[in-house]
Amino acid sequence: MVKRIITISREFGSGGRFIGEEVAKKLGIAYYDKNIINQIAEESGLSPDYIQESAELSPKKGLFAYAFAGRDITGKSLEDMVYEAQRKVILELADKESCVIIGRNADFILKDRDDVLNVFIHGDMPEKIQRISRLYHVSEQEAVKLIADTDKRRMTNYNFYTGQKWGKGSNYTLCLNSSQLGYDRCEAVIMECR
Amino acid sequence: MVKRIITISREFGSGGRFIGEEVAKKLGIAYYDKNIINQIAEESGLSPDYIQESAELSPKKGLFAYAFAGRDITGKSLEDMVYEAQRKVILELADKESCVIIGRNADFILKDRDDVLNVFIHGDMPEKIQRISRLYHVSEQEAVKLIADTDKRRMTNYNFYTGQKWGKGSNYTLCLNSSQLGYDRCEAVIMECR
Repeated sequence: MVKRIITISREFGSGGRFIGEEVAKKLGIAYYDKNIINQIAEESGLSPDYIQESAELSPKKGLFAYAFAGRDITGKSLEDMVYEAQRKVILELADKESCVIIGRNADFILKDRDDVLNVFIHGDMPEKIQRISRLYHVSEQEAVKLIADTDKRRMTNYNFYTGQKWGKGSNYTLCLNSSQLGYDRCEAVIMECR
Repeated sequence: MVKRIITISREFGSGGRFIGEEVAKKLGIAYYDKNIINQIAEESGLSPDYIQESAELSPKKGLFAYAFAGRDITGKSLEDMVYEAQRKVILELADKESCVIIGRNADFILKDRDDVLNVFIHGDMPEKIQRISRLYHVSEQEAVKLIADTDKRRMTNYNFYTGQKWGKGSNYTLCLNSSQLGYDRCEAVIMECR
Protein backbone atom coordinates (compact mmCIF):
# COMPACT_ATOMS: atom_id res chain seq x y z
CA MET A 1 0.00 0.00 0.00
CA VAL A 2 1.28 3.46 -0.89
CA LYS A 3 1.95 5.56 2.19
CA ARG A 4 -0.27 8.62 1.82
CA ILE A 5 1.46 10.58 4.54
CA ILE A 6 5.16 11.24 5.01
CA THR A 7 6.45 12.64 8.29
CA ILE A 8 9.95 14.13 8.36
CA SER A 9 11.80 14.50 11.64
CA ARG A 10 15.20 16.10 11.25
CA GLU A 11 18.34 17.37 12.88
CA PHE A 12 18.76 21.13 12.58
CA GLY A 13 20.89 21.88 9.51
CA SER A 14 20.46 18.46 7.90
CA GLY A 15 18.26 19.83 5.11
CA GLY A 16 15.33 17.65 6.20
CA ARG A 17 12.81 20.44 5.68
CA PHE A 18 14.14 21.19 2.20
CA ILE A 19 14.10 17.48 1.28
CA GLY A 20 10.52 17.16 2.55
CA GLU A 21 9.38 20.17 0.54
CA GLU A 22 10.99 18.81 -2.64
CA VAL A 23 9.35 15.40 -2.12
CA ALA A 24 5.94 17.06 -1.68
CA LYS A 25 6.44 19.07 -4.90
CA LYS A 26 7.55 16.03 -6.88
CA LEU A 27 4.63 13.95 -5.64
CA GLY A 28 2.18 16.84 -6.05
CA ILE A 29 0.91 16.52 -2.48
CA ALA A 30 0.41 19.04 0.33
CA TYR A 31 3.31 20.23 2.46
CA TYR A 32 2.84 21.22 6.10
CA ASP A 33 5.45 23.01 8.13
CA LYS A 34 5.21 26.57 9.50
CA ASN A 35 2.00 26.96 7.51
CA ILE A 36 0.04 25.02 10.16
CA ILE A 37 0.93 27.51 12.87
CA ASN A 38 -2.19 29.58 12.23
CA GLN A 39 -4.38 26.50 12.50
CA ILE A 40 -2.74 25.52 15.79
CA ALA A 41 -3.16 29.10 17.04
CA GLU A 42 -6.85 29.07 16.16
CA GLU A 43 -7.38 25.65 17.75
CA SER A 44 -5.60 26.60 20.98
CA GLY A 45 -6.66 30.23 21.29
CA LEU A 46 -2.99 31.23 21.68
CA SER A 47 -1.09 33.68 19.47
CA PRO A 48 0.72 32.49 16.33
CA ASP A 49 3.94 34.04 17.70
CA TYR A 50 3.72 31.96 20.84
CA ILE A 51 3.01 28.82 18.82
CA GLN A 52 5.96 29.49 16.56
CA GLU A 53 8.24 29.74 19.57
CA SER A 54 6.91 26.84 21.60
CA ALA A 55 5.40 24.15 19.39
CA GLU A 56 7.96 21.44 18.78
CA LEU A 57 10.57 23.16 20.95
CA SER A 58 10.87 22.84 24.68
CA PRO A 59 11.46 26.10 26.56
CA LYS A 60 15.12 26.86 27.09
CA LYS A 61 14.85 25.93 30.75
CA GLY A 62 15.31 22.16 30.30
CA LEU A 63 13.32 19.00 30.87
CA PHE A 64 12.79 19.12 34.62
CA ALA A 65 11.41 22.63 34.59
CA TYR A 66 9.50 21.72 31.44
CA ALA A 67 7.66 18.94 33.17
CA PHE A 68 6.69 20.83 36.27
CA ALA A 69 6.59 24.56 35.65
CA GLY A 70 3.71 26.72 34.57
CA ARG A 71 0.94 24.21 35.21
CA ASP A 72 -2.46 25.57 36.18
CA ILE A 73 -4.87 24.04 38.66
CA THR A 74 -5.82 21.32 36.15
CA GLY A 75 -2.14 20.33 35.80
CA LYS A 76 -2.01 21.65 32.25
CA SER A 77 0.76 23.98 31.13
CA LEU A 78 0.55 26.33 28.14
CA GLU A 79 2.86 23.91 26.33
CA ASP A 80 0.39 21.09 26.94
CA MET A 81 -2.36 23.22 25.38
CA VAL A 82 -0.19 23.93 22.35
CA TYR A 83 0.67 20.26 22.04
CA GLU A 84 -2.95 19.18 22.27
CA ALA A 85 -3.98 21.71 19.60
CA GLN A 86 -1.08 20.66 17.38
CA ARG A 87 -2.03 17.01 17.79
CA LYS A 88 -5.63 17.70 16.78
CA VAL A 89 -4.60 19.70 13.71
CA ILE A 90 -2.16 16.98 12.56
CA LEU A 91 -4.76 14.20 13.00
CA GLU A 92 -7.23 16.24 10.92
CA LEU A 93 -4.70 16.96 8.16
CA ALA A 94 -3.82 13.27 7.90
CA ASP A 95 -7.50 12.41 7.55
CA LYS A 96 -8.02 15.05 4.91
CA GLU A 97 -5.28 14.52 2.33
CA SER A 98 -1.95 13.04 1.26
CA CYS A 99 0.82 15.23 2.62
CA VAL A 100 4.33 15.73 3.94
CA ILE A 101 4.46 16.96 7.55
CA ILE A 102 7.69 18.38 8.96
CA GLY A 103 8.55 17.79 12.62
CA ARG A 104 6.01 18.42 15.41
CA ASN A 105 6.13 14.80 16.64
CA ALA A 106 3.84 13.85 13.75
CA ASP A 107 5.41 10.37 13.57
CA PHE A 108 4.18 9.67 17.09
CA ILE A 109 0.86 11.49 16.76
CA LEU A 110 0.00 9.38 13.68
CA LYS A 111 1.35 6.09 15.06
CA ASP A 112 -2.01 4.30 14.89
CA ARG A 113 -2.33 4.78 11.12
CA ASP A 114 -0.80 2.30 8.71
CA ASP A 115 -0.49 4.69 5.77
CA VAL A 116 2.37 6.76 7.19
CA LEU A 117 6.05 6.69 6.23
CA ASN A 118 8.16 8.06 9.09
CA VAL A 119 11.52 9.50 8.06
CA PHE A 120 14.38 10.88 10.16
CA ILE A 121 17.00 13.00 8.37
CA HIS A 122 20.33 13.66 10.02
CA GLY A 123 23.74 14.81 8.84
CA ASP A 124 27.43 15.26 9.60
CA MET A 125 28.50 18.29 11.65
CA PRO A 126 30.72 20.01 9.02
CA GLU A 127 27.87 20.06 6.46
CA LYS A 128 25.27 21.13 9.03
CA ILE A 129 27.49 23.98 10.25
CA GLN A 130 28.05 25.20 6.68
CA ARG A 131 24.34 25.10 5.94
CA ILE A 132 23.27 26.96 9.07
CA SER A 133 26.03 29.59 8.69
CA ARG A 134 24.88 30.27 5.15
CA LEU A 135 21.11 30.25 5.77
CA TYR A 136 21.12 32.25 9.01
CA HIS A 137 24.15 34.47 8.27
CA VAL A 138 25.95 33.49 11.46
CA SER A 139 29.55 32.51 12.23
CA GLU A 140 30.51 28.84 12.37
CA GLN A 141 30.80 29.08 16.13
CA GLU A 142 27.29 30.50 16.40
CA ALA A 143 26.02 27.80 14.06
CA VAL A 144 27.41 25.08 16.33
CA LYS A 145 25.59 26.62 19.28
CA LEU A 146 22.34 27.03 17.32
CA ILE A 147 22.44 23.40 16.18
CA ALA A 148 23.10 22.08 19.69
CA ASP A 149 20.39 24.27 21.26
CA THR A 150 17.71 23.59 18.66
CA ASP A 151 18.23 19.82 18.59
CA LYS A 152 18.28 19.69 22.38
CA ARG A 153 14.97 21.53 22.55
CA ARG A 154 13.41 19.34 19.85
CA MET A 155 14.64 16.24 21.63
CA THR A 156 13.32 17.39 25.01
CA ASN A 157 9.90 18.18 23.56
CA TYR A 158 9.75 14.87 21.67
CA ASN A 159 10.92 12.71 24.57
CA PHE A 160 8.55 14.43 27.00
CA TYR A 161 5.40 14.11 24.90
CA THR A 162 6.03 10.75 23.23
CA GLY A 163 7.89 8.73 25.87
CA GLN A 164 10.21 7.69 23.04
CA LYS A 165 13.79 8.72 22.22
CA TRP A 166 14.15 11.33 19.50
CA GLY A 167 16.43 10.06 16.71
CA LYS A 168 16.33 6.40 17.77
CA GLY A 169 16.48 4.41 14.53
CA SER A 170 13.65 2.03 15.35
CA ASN A 171 11.10 4.88 15.77
CA TYR A 172 11.23 5.58 12.04
CA THR A 173 10.67 3.56 8.89
CA LEU A 174 13.69 5.19 7.33
CA CYS A 175 16.67 7.21 8.66
CA LEU A 176 18.98 8.90 6.17
CA ASN A 177 22.28 10.75 6.51
CA SER A 178 21.83 13.61 4.05
CA SER A 179 25.53 14.62 4.13
CA GLN A 180 26.64 11.17 3.03
CA LEU A 181 23.79 10.37 0.65
CA GLY A 182 23.11 13.83 -0.81
CA TYR A 183 19.71 15.54 -0.89
CA ASP A 184 18.69 14.15 -4.31
CA ARG A 185 19.27 10.58 -3.26
CA CYS A 186 17.40 11.12 0.03
CA GLU A 187 14.42 12.38 -1.98
CA ALA A 188 14.60 9.40 -4.37
CA VAL A 189 14.78 6.86 -1.52
CA ILE A 190 11.82 8.45 0.32
CA MET A 191 9.71 8.33 -2.84
CA GLU A 192 10.75 4.74 -3.51
CA CYS A 193 9.84 3.65 0.02
CA ARG A 194 6.41 5.20 -0.04
CA MET B 1 32.29 7.45 -4.83
CA VAL B 2 30.91 3.93 -4.57
CA LYS B 3 31.06 2.56 -1.03
CA ARG B 4 33.20 -0.58 -1.26
CA ILE B 5 32.22 -1.85 2.15
CA ILE B 6 28.75 -2.29 3.62
CA THR B 7 28.31 -2.91 7.34
CA ILE B 8 24.98 -4.26 8.55
CA SER B 9 23.97 -3.88 12.18
CA ARG B 10 20.62 -5.42 12.96
CA GLU B 11 17.99 -6.23 15.53
CA PHE B 12 17.60 -9.96 16.14
CA GLY B 13 14.82 -11.28 13.91
CA SER B 14 14.78 -8.31 11.54
CA GLY B 15 16.29 -10.31 8.67
CA GLY B 16 19.34 -8.03 8.55
CA ARG B 17 21.74 -10.93 8.08
CA PHE B 18 19.64 -12.36 5.23
CA ILE B 19 19.36 -8.95 3.56
CA GLY B 20 23.13 -8.46 3.84
CA GLU B 21 23.83 -11.86 2.31
CA GLU B 22 21.48 -11.17 -0.61
CA VAL B 23 23.11 -7.77 -1.24
CA ALA B 24 26.58 -9.39 -1.29
CA LYS B 25 25.36 -12.04 -3.77
CA LYS B 26 23.73 -9.48 -6.05
CA LEU B 27 26.82 -7.25 -6.01
CA GLY B 28 29.16 -10.23 -6.37
CA ILE B 29 31.25 -9.19 -3.36
CA ALA B 30 32.48 -11.03 -0.27
CA TYR B 31 30.19 -11.66 2.71
CA TYR B 32 31.54 -11.85 6.25
CA ASP B 33 29.54 -13.11 9.19
CA LYS B 34 30.18 -16.28 11.18
CA ASN B 35 32.83 -17.19 8.64
CA ILE B 36 35.31 -14.78 10.25
CA ILE B 37 35.17 -16.61 13.58
CA ASN B 38 38.09 -18.84 12.66
CA GLN B 39 40.21 -15.83 11.73
CA ILE B 40 39.37 -14.13 15.03
CA ALA B 41 40.19 -17.37 16.88
CA GLU B 42 43.55 -17.62 15.16
CA GLU B 43 44.35 -13.95 15.80
CA SER B 44 43.41 -14.12 19.50
CA GLY B 45 44.60 -17.65 20.31
CA LEU B 46 41.15 -18.43 21.79
CA SER B 47 38.85 -21.24 20.68
CA PRO B 48 36.31 -20.73 17.88
CA ASP B 49 33.55 -21.85 20.26
CA TYR B 50 34.46 -19.15 22.74
CA ILE B 51 34.58 -16.53 19.98
CA GLN B 52 31.19 -17.60 18.68
CA GLU B 53 29.71 -17.15 22.13
CA SER B 54 31.41 -13.90 23.12
CA ALA B 55 32.28 -11.78 20.10
CA GLU B 56 29.58 -9.20 19.53
CA LEU B 57 27.60 -10.34 22.58
CA SER B 58 28.20 -9.22 26.12
CA PRO B 59 28.14 -11.96 28.75
CA LYS B 60 24.72 -12.48 30.28
CA LYS B 61 25.84 -10.81 33.48
CA GLY B 62 25.19 -7.23 32.36
CA LEU B 63 27.17 -4.09 31.74
CA PHE B 64 28.59 -3.39 35.18
CA ALA B 65 30.01 -6.87 35.58
CA TYR B 66 31.09 -6.74 31.95
CA ALA B 67 33.21 -3.69 32.51
CA PHE B 68 34.95 -4.88 35.63
CA ALA B 69 34.98 -8.67 35.85
CA GLY B 70 37.59 -11.11 34.62
CA ARG B 71 40.36 -8.60 34.00
CA ASP B 72 43.93 -9.79 34.40
CA ILE B 73 46.83 -7.79 35.85
CA THR B 74 47.09 -5.68 32.68
CA GLY B 75 43.40 -4.75 33.01
CA LYS B 76 42.46 -6.79 29.96
CA SER B 77 39.58 -9.24 30.06
CA LEU B 78 39.14 -12.18 27.68
CA GLU B 79 36.39 -10.15 26.02
CA ASP B 80 38.87 -7.33 25.39
CA MET B 81 41.22 -9.79 23.72
CA VAL B 82 38.43 -11.10 21.50
CA TYR B 83 37.42 -7.55 20.63
CA GLU B 84 40.97 -6.55 19.75
CA ALA B 85 41.41 -9.62 17.52
CA GLN B 86 38.02 -8.98 15.88
CA ARG B 87 38.95 -5.36 15.26
CA LYS B 88 42.23 -6.34 13.57
CA VAL B 89 40.53 -8.93 11.35
CA ILE B 90 37.83 -6.46 10.27
CA LEU B 91 40.38 -3.73 9.46
CA GLU B 92 42.34 -6.21 7.33
CA LEU B 93 39.24 -7.45 5.49
CA ALA B 94 38.23 -3.88 4.66
CA ASP B 95 41.70 -3.21 3.27
CA LYS B 96 41.62 -6.38 1.21
CA GLU B 97 38.35 -6.34 -0.69
CA SER B 98 34.81 -5.04 -1.23
CA CYS B 99 32.52 -6.82 1.19
CA VAL B 100 29.42 -6.92 3.38
CA ILE B 101 30.19 -7.34 7.10
CA ILE B 102 27.43 -8.35 9.51
CA GLY B 103 27.46 -6.96 13.05
CA ARG B 104 30.61 -7.05 15.21
CA ASN B 105 30.68 -3.26 15.64
CA ALA B 106 32.19 -3.00 12.15
CA ASP B 107 30.53 0.41 11.61
CA PHE B 108 32.55 1.82 14.50
CA ILE B 109 35.74 -0.13 13.77
CA LEU B 110 35.79 1.25 10.21
CA LYS B 111 34.71 4.80 11.12
CA ASP B 112 37.88 6.42 9.78
CA ARG B 113 37.33 5.13 6.23
CA ASP B 114 35.20 7.08 3.77
CA ASP B 115 34.25 4.10 1.57
CA VAL B 116 31.88 2.49 4.06
CA LEU B 117 28.06 2.45 4.01
CA ASN B 118 26.73 1.79 7.52
CA VAL B 119 23.27 0.24 7.65
CA PHE B 120 21.02 -0.58 10.61
CA ILE B 121 18.11 -2.96 10.00
CA HIS B 122 15.27 -3.17 12.49
CA GLY B 123 11.71 -4.47 12.44
CA ASP B 124 8.33 -4.63 14.13
CA MET B 125 7.85 -7.12 16.97
CA PRO B 126 5.12 -9.30 15.38
CA GLU B 127 7.27 -9.98 12.29
CA LYS B 128 10.44 -10.54 14.34
CA ILE B 129 8.64 -13.00 16.63
CA GLN B 130 7.28 -14.94 13.65
CA ARG B 131 10.71 -15.12 12.03
CA ILE B 132 12.54 -16.29 15.16
CA SER B 133 9.84 -18.86 16.03
CA ARG B 134 10.14 -20.31 12.54
CA LEU B 135 13.93 -20.28 12.23
CA TYR B 136 14.75 -21.51 15.75
CA HIS B 137 11.69 -23.77 16.23
CA VAL B 138 10.67 -22.07 19.47
CA SER B 139 7.34 -20.84 20.85
CA GLU B 140 6.34 -17.20 20.43
CA GLN B 141 6.97 -16.62 24.10
CA GLU B 142 10.47 -18.03 23.83
CA ALA B 143 11.08 -15.95 20.71
CA VAL B 144 10.19 -12.76 22.61
CA LYS B 145 12.72 -13.66 25.30
CA LEU B 146 15.42 -14.58 22.76
CA ILE B 147 14.94 -11.29 20.93
CA ALA B 148 15.11 -9.23 24.12
CA ASP B 149 18.18 -11.10 25.43
CA THR B 150 20.14 -11.07 22.19
CA ASP B 151 19.52 -7.40 21.44
CA LYS B 152 20.37 -6.46 25.02
CA ARG B 153 23.69 -8.30 24.79
CA ARG B 154 24.49 -6.79 21.38
CA MET B 155 23.64 -3.35 22.70
CA THR B 156 25.74 -3.78 25.84
CA ASN B 157 28.75 -4.95 23.83
CA TYR B 158 28.36 -2.13 21.29
CA ASN B 159 27.85 0.63 23.84
CA PHE B 160 30.78 -0.59 25.96
CA TYR B 161 33.33 -0.81 23.14
CA THR B 162 32.22 2.13 20.98
CA GLY B 163 31.00 4.71 23.50
CA GLN B 164 28.04 5.19 21.14
CA LYS B 165 24.42 4.10 21.43
CA TRP B 166 23.48 0.97 19.49
CA GLY B 167 20.57 1.68 17.13
CA LYS B 168 20.82 5.49 17.33
CA GLY B 169 19.86 6.72 13.87
CA SER B 170 22.74 9.14 13.45
CA ASN B 171 25.38 6.39 13.86
CA TYR B 172 24.39 4.92 10.51
CA THR B 173 24.13 6.18 6.95
CA LEU B 174 20.86 4.35 6.54
CA CYS B 175 18.33 2.74 8.93
CA LEU B 176 15.55 0.61 7.50
CA ASN B 177 12.47 -1.03 9.01
CA SER B 178 12.39 -4.38 7.19
CA SER B 179 8.85 -5.23 8.36
CA GLN B 180 7.42 -2.08 6.83
CA LEU B 181 9.60 -1.89 3.72
CA GLY B 182 10.02 -5.60 2.93
CA TYR B 183 13.35 -7.38 2.42
CA ASP B 184 13.49 -6.79 -1.36
CA ARG B 185 13.07 -3.05 -0.99
CA CYS B 186 15.69 -2.92 1.79
CA GLU B 187 18.15 -4.67 -0.55
CA ALA B 188 17.32 -2.28 -3.40
CA VAL B 189 17.76 0.82 -1.22
CA ILE B 190 21.10 -0.40 0.16
CA MET B 191 22.41 -1.03 -3.36
CA GLU B 192 21.13 2.35 -4.52
CA CYS B 193 22.84 4.16 -1.63
CA ARG B 194 26.18 2.54 -2.17
